[in-house]
Amino acid sequence: MPDRFSGQNEIYYGDDSPIAACATALAETALSLIRASGGGSIELLADCFSRPAALREAAANTIVYGWIEDDGKPVDEVLVSVYRAPKSFTGEDGIDISCHGGLAAGRAVLQTLLNHGFRQALNGEFSFRSFMNGKIDLTRAEAVMEIVSAKSDAGRGRAVTRLSGVLEREIRQINMLLLDSLTEIELLLDYSELDGVSAGDETLPGRGKVEEALARLRALEQSYRAEKLYHDGALVVIAGKPNAGKSSLFNLLLREERAIISEIPGTTRDWIEGWISVEGIPIRLADTAGLRESADLVEKLGIEKSFNLLEGADLIILTLDGIIDEKTLFREDADFSARWSKKPVLTVWNKSDIKPPPENAAGFCAVSAKTGAGLNILYKKIAGALAKTAGKAPDLSGAGLGSGRQKALIDAAISGVESALARHDEGLPADLVAPALREAVDSLGEITGEVSNADILEAMFSRFCVGK
Amino acid sequence: MPDRFSGQNEIYYGDDSPIAACATALAETALSLIRASGGGSIELLADCFSRPAALREAAANTIVYGWIEDDGKPVDEVLVSVYRAPKSFTGEDGIDISCHGGLAAGRAVLQTLLNHGFRQALNGEFSFRSFMNGKIDLTRAEAVMEIVSAKSDAGRGRAVTRLSGVLEREIRQINMLLLDSLTEIELLLDYSELDGVSAGDETLPGRGKVEEALARLRALEQSYRAEKLYHDGALVVIAGKPNAGKSSLFNLLLREERAIISEIPGTTRDWIEGWISVEGIPIRLADTAGLRESADLVEKLGIEKSFNLLEGADLIILTLDGIIDEKTLFREDADFSARWSKKPVLTVWNKSDIKPPPENAAGFCAVSAKTGAGLNILYKKIAGALAKTAGKAPDLSGAGLGSGRQKALIDAAISGVESALARHDEGLPADLVAPALREAVDSLGEITGEVSNADILEAMFSRFCVGK
Repeated sequence: MPDRFSGQNEIYYGDDSPIAACATALAETALSLIRASGGGSIELLADCFSRPAALREAAANTIVYGWIEDDGKPVDEVLVSVYRAPKSFTGEDGIDISCHGGLAAGRAVLQTLLNHGFRQALNGEFSFRSFMNGKIDLTRAEAVMEIVSAKSDAGRGRAVTRLSGVLEREIRQINMLLLDSLTEIELLLDYSELDGVSAGDETLPGRGKVEEALARLRALEQSYRAEKLYHDGALVVIAGKPNAGKSSLFNLLLREERAIISEIPGTTRDWIEGWISVEGIPIRLADTAGLRESADLVEKLGIEKSFNLLEGADLIILTLDGIIDEKTLFREDADFSARWSKKPVLTVWNKSDIKPPPENAAGFCAVSAKTGAGLNILYKKIAGALAKTAGKAPDLSGAGLGSGRQKALIDAAISGVESALARHDEGLPADLVAPALREAVDSLGEITGEVSNADILEAMFSRFCVGK
Repeated sequence: MPDRFSGQNEIYYGDDSPIAACATALAETALSLIRASGGGSIELLADCFSRPAALREAAANTIVYGWIEDDGKPVDEVLVSVYRAPKSFTGEDGIDISCHGGLAAGRAVLQTLLNHGFRQALNGEFSFRSFMNGKIDLTRAEAVMEIVSAKSDAGRGRAVTRLSGVLEREIRQINMLLLDSLTEIELLLDYSELDGVSAGDETLPGRGKVEEALARLRALEQSYRAEKLYHDGALVVIAGKPNAGKSSLFNLLLREERAIISEIPGTTRDWIEGWISVEGIPIRLADTAGLRESADLVEKLGIEKSFNLLEGADLIILTLDGIIDEKTLFREDADFSARWSKKPVLTVWNKSDIKPPPENAAGFCAVSAKTGAGLNILYKKIAGALAKTAGKAPDLSGAGLGSGRQKALIDAAISGVESALARHDEGLPADLVAPALREAVDSLGEITGEVSNADILEAMFSRFCVGK
């Protein structure tokens, strides 16, 4: 099979040669999409296309029908979308080839392109070029990858809002407030020198703007945990004694909410798990029933794997068998809660169809895994408990933070602004206040990519997927 | 998550309403492709598109940038390819929406379309419409599905040749030969009636053409097993005593040839297997080492699972440990071969790095799983043995048969032609010969779809994947 792709030696982001990659999964689907970009890419494709003249003469944003050919041999029947610089995703000449799906067709088309002078694209290289050519800022580039890796519709929706530029605008506006203040300080410093007056005597120019900027930065910072919850999701672990109905509860939760990921490839586990989406929060639901169980709950928890799973949990659902005698039951619940006091624990009174929870068990969530009764309340409680751990998110009309990189830079900006205000409060002169503000401005510039360096960009884009 | 797709009640192939489907896998990839077709589909999409006028006015085969929106809320940033009847795959107005990849984006875009009057496409419904609108014949429609399900590049290449129409042309030419002869017979019958002469006295008109048709039909029939081998692949099972080096051999074979499918989803097995491609033949390679082993080979083979695997094998690789004493070795080989005498067995003399095979063991393939020596010869022998089981395929310049449906209809055509010739040989009159030829002509017409009925078409297209 001719699929030994060219090696990636001596290739680096910033090289502007024609690149190609498969932008969809090679699977038994109807179609695959091969994407290519770079100066001369339309000309290069013409060399392995059944209708070279039609392709060369194609206007921007038009589609050309034909066959990809290698050495005159037909490779696949395709539709080629033609983009011409600068009106394309990357800002360069580019093509999208829609070919047949399956394991072999997309690979064969890509290999033909590689045989004809295209180079296999690096991870995120299309987005990198799009950024370098001023088509998108870094928050939008990251939003694209967020959309691709979104696990629920709510996560996707939040990323789409960022893609539309809401976060970029908020950051630029905050930056503008700081820059306004900096300009005023610098003006003051200029006059001070002329007049021989100490800047320290003056009120910090634009202090109101700096304080407004700080408040808005803090709101962004607070948004991160909620955004992360909707993007990365949460681990919810079902625990409880043998025969308490853990597996039935697990299956019920999974069946009612469509599982959004059936399996995480490349992993083997000793427990059963699946992804569900509850009120838009992607939840990795794990059932400890698969773990070797001994008769006693506490003894069972001694098993290392079970411990690790529970320790990593964002929420534990403790399943109690409502049929066993109540005294044992409450002690069991108390023991478990004491042991996992740092974790949010939701206690489910299972088998409520046989025996409803007693009146003095108000904290319990009564569910019947058999009839499904109480399930909607349980979903609400799960979502509520997880939202609580993420903290209250301020209303930012969708301008929440979308990545750890953004969060770190917002933290840096906050500390810059705080230190500027602190220096001013201590009576330090404006020329000692300005550098701290300048640092904050630079951090914000890094978020959007106005301020950037090659290494950081490369580190960021290399985490993207190929073809993006 | 709003992904409860509309039910498929009272929907049937032949309904020409606007349909939509995801044509790529929902996975963490750069892009997804949503495909839609049907009268009014461009107008319908305009209702959930940020630039409705640009879309409505778009010329055929052009690309429109914009956002898919649901109730004014942005769903995803997309590129829409616009096709206008009759210049499209289906022959209808159609659109391809290139949106972001991932689990959520494609689903959200598709759901938006379903919310706006599109119906979820049935399996193969795009191809069905393409056929009904005279854009492709049935051999090409089947070739598309062959490409999608191809497991090796050679399998894909053969299907691509069929897609280019080579098989369709061959069948139409054979049909023409038979029709020429039929026309002459009917002419003769007309004259016979006028002249009062018995048709049976005459030589069968165009008998030479009928015989040529039969030869070409037989060549097609013979091609099927080889085509099937390259498309479906073969099961090759590694057997042998414990510690003969089965697992090392398995890993070596899998490592050297890139595994083309790592896992067949939804199956659990008691043995290890993987797909490799050897000289273009997709091979499902299974290692019986995972099966519980007892000390003795024959006893081990008593295990039912091992038996089933070996019985299903197209080729067995018997691995012998070259280090053990030669007498035992040859007896073991003879025992095994006697038991599996109906199967092709390839005997591998493993550990040839430690001890090369003796001179009187010429039939053995000497391999060292440790050093890789002898591996290329083993690959050649595997491919040779499998090609032999498929029989010698006639050179048809790529016009081999691509499906069991085609094979069955070619068989029917052959039996029609044979029976026509036999009747003529028996001296039966031409009006008794003609109906058998007519049956053959109808069978060939069914292959391309000139002759068809709704049930057969529905059964065929429903085996295609969604979005195709």
